[in-house]
Amino acid sequence: MSSRYEQSAVTVLGLGPMGRALARALLDAGLPTTVWNRTPGRDRELVEQGAAGARTPEEAVAASPLTLICVVNYDAADAVLRRDAVTDALKGRAVVNLTADTPNRARDTARWAAEHGIRYLDGAIMTPTTTIGTPAAVFIHSGPEELYQEHRPVWEALGGTHTHLGEDIGRAAAYDIALLDIFWTAMAGYAHALAVAGAEGVTARELAPFAQGIGAILPPLFGEVAGEVDDGTFSGEGNPLTSAVSSMAHVVETSEAHGIDAGVMRAAEGMARRAVGLGHGADGFVRIAEVLGRR
Amino acid sequence: MSSRYEQSAVTVLGLGPMGRALARALLDAGLPTTVWNRTPGRDRELVEQGAAGARTPEEAVAASPLTLICVVNYDAADAVLRRDAVTDALKGRAVVNLTADTPNRARDTARWAAEHGIRYLDGAIMTPTTTIGTPAAVFIHSGPEELYQEHRPVWEALGGTHTHLGEDIGRAAAYDIALLDIFWTAMAGYAHALAVAGAEGVTARELAPFAQGIGAILPPLFGEVAGEVDDGTFSGEGNPLTSAVSSMAHVVETSEAHGIDAGVMRAAEGMARRAVGLGHGADGFVRIAEVLGRR
Ligand SMILES: NC(=O)c1ccc[n+]([C@@H]2O[C@H](COP(=O)([O-])OP(=O)(O)OC[C@H]3O[C@@H](n4cnc5c(N)ncnc54)[C@H](OP(=O)(O)O)[C@@H]3O)[C@@H](O)[C@H]2O)c1
Ligand SMILES: NC(=O)c1ccc[n+]([C@@H]2O[C@H](COP(=O)([O-])OP(=O)(O)OC[C@H]3O[C@@H](n4cnc5c(N)ncnc54)[C@H](OP(=O)(O)O)[C@@H]3O)[C@@H](O)[C@H]2O)c1
Repeated sequence: MSSRYEQSAVTVLGLGPMGRALARALLDAGLPTTVWNRTPGRDRELVEQGAAGARTPEEAVAASPLTLICVVNYDAADAVLRRDAVTDALKGRAVVNLTADTPNRARDTARWAAEHGIRYLDGAIMTPTTTIGTPAAVFIHSGPEELYQEHRPVWEALGGTHTHLGEDIGRAAAYDIALLDIFWTAMAGYAHALAVAGAEGVTARELAPFAQGIGAILPPLFGEVAGEVDDGTFSGEGNPLTSAVSSMAHVVETSEAHGIDAGVMRAAEGMARRAVGLGHGADGFVRIAEVLGRR
Repeated sequence: MSSRYEQSAVTVLGLGPMGRALARALLDAGLPTTVWNRTPGRDRELVEQGAAGARTPEEAVAASPLTLICVVNYDAADAVLRRDAVTDALKGRAVVNLTADTPNRARDTARWAAEHGIRYLDGAIMTPTTTIGTPAAVFIHSGPEELYQEHRPVWEALGGTHTHLGEDIGRAAAYDIALLDIFWTAMAGYAHALAVAGAEGVTARELAPFAQGIGAILPPLFGEVAGEVDDGTFSGEGNPLTSAVSSMAHVVETSEAHGIDAGVMRAAEGMARRAVGLGHGADGFVRIAEVLGRR
């Protein structure tokens, strides 16, 4: 049994939807893979596909030079990694934490890893499970560059693009947080818009093509206004904050007239009105980023 | 003077960034155009381009069979249209209101128009000023189909795609509100993300390419989940609400640890937690649309 594990190239801890997708991609690429999940039974299909199913996390991490962990958050990752048996088994080995959490948690885990002679890289996955193993996957990494370079074949097996963002261990999590901020805020806006549209007798399928059109405007706009934020020049030409505030108020009014909670837009409108109140009404919308970030 | 106005095909009331873009496109297409703006002087470039500059709104609307109005909101539109001299001059003529506001305001204006023998169509513009006159422009219209068809050459001059959404006069505004909801919520998320990234030492230009990647995920996702909302089946497979809630909490925590207001994400997280609390934790995120819309 143990000899089989010693031949394994990668261990995957955590077999939620994302952990399973990672393990499948590794197996598809022909990398001997050991898997483990807290709740037993989640490894069935992977074992059928050729994975070695470990009975304990210490057995799992001992089977490979490299362990990927992908669980719900760092509390869960700590619950797995910071048990003595697992920590001991990891000594001299490498862990890449693909669990999403805050930059501070990544920094804390790096300290723990250093104390225990464990090599540590932090990462984040920016695309859905269905992209893993395909060119559409997006991974970001931060921490020791050398460790990142050493495992290129693993990144290739996972597919998509991998970017090493720097040696600061918190950097991948910082990007992750910012990107999740964009993603979940936008999704909250879409869910709310569908509720308001529904109350107006417009079905989701009717709205969707137009919603997709709005979605398609965002990437180029994100690019355009980024420079304004870095340079501190906020051109409101063509679309000043005052105009945004007026639109936002219409959304709140229509939503609440239907008894639909408009808390998200109310908060966004408040942010925009604060910037207008500070004298930035003629500026473009991303002036808000500067106002929010003021000390 | 008056004979010149009688030859005008279209009148544009309101020469903010959008009104000017509309008038420019009409002139570029060779349509004789009359323009007016509350604050004088905004018509200068347009007049140089060949527009007739009217001194009063009543003079302006009398010059053309069709008037487009595009001002900040319906309070502003009312302030222009509902003065006796203007209302009288509009009798028997057509108004297309391209001002953004709520469906209820559009319905109210339709009532006013009917009372005064004015033909009325409501519309909304879904793309920035720079798209006007280009294939990228998106316009939506609602109200009398016949009136919409009659002015096809004007829509063609404005460029892009025009969709007549139905005879219900409030429909264009309903779509508009829903689409603005998506747009401004997403932009609020981006502005906030840039503030948090900045506090973590990540510049806007560094984040932008990844933000654009996230933006590019949205349109297909918007399409996919629309059917779930219409059908009332919310598959959380691969990405359940509980996982979203965990990510959202990380964003709030990181933001507030930097002293950056996280009101928008707090409100979005609250919405998601409410759906989880109602027993929908294993469902996909757009279950929120159904929960918000419940009576
Ligand atoms: N799904 C996606 O599309 C996606 C995309 C990008 C990033 N991510 C990130 O990937 C990570 C994993 O996500 P996921 O989609 O696989 O589902 P998830 O629901 O976020 O995580 C489920 C996994 O966490 C484990 N877990 C939870 N609490 C635990 C604990 N206390 N001890 C040990 N294990 C624990 C679960 O084990 P049990 O089976 O025992 O409960 C399961 O393996 C998350 O950080 C997520 O943000 C996911
Ligand atoms: N800009 C865009 O990219 C965009 C995109 C889609 C839709 N829209 C919509 O298009 C409409 C016009 O937008 P905009 O960008 O041109 O700028 P705006 O700032 O929304 O509107 C400015 C126009 O409104 C007029 N106005 C304001 N209050 C008035 C009042 N009480 N009486 C008469 N006129 C008044 C202004 O006249 P003064 O010059 O006298 O102040 C100016 O002509 C809005 O509903 C907006 O939501 C704009």
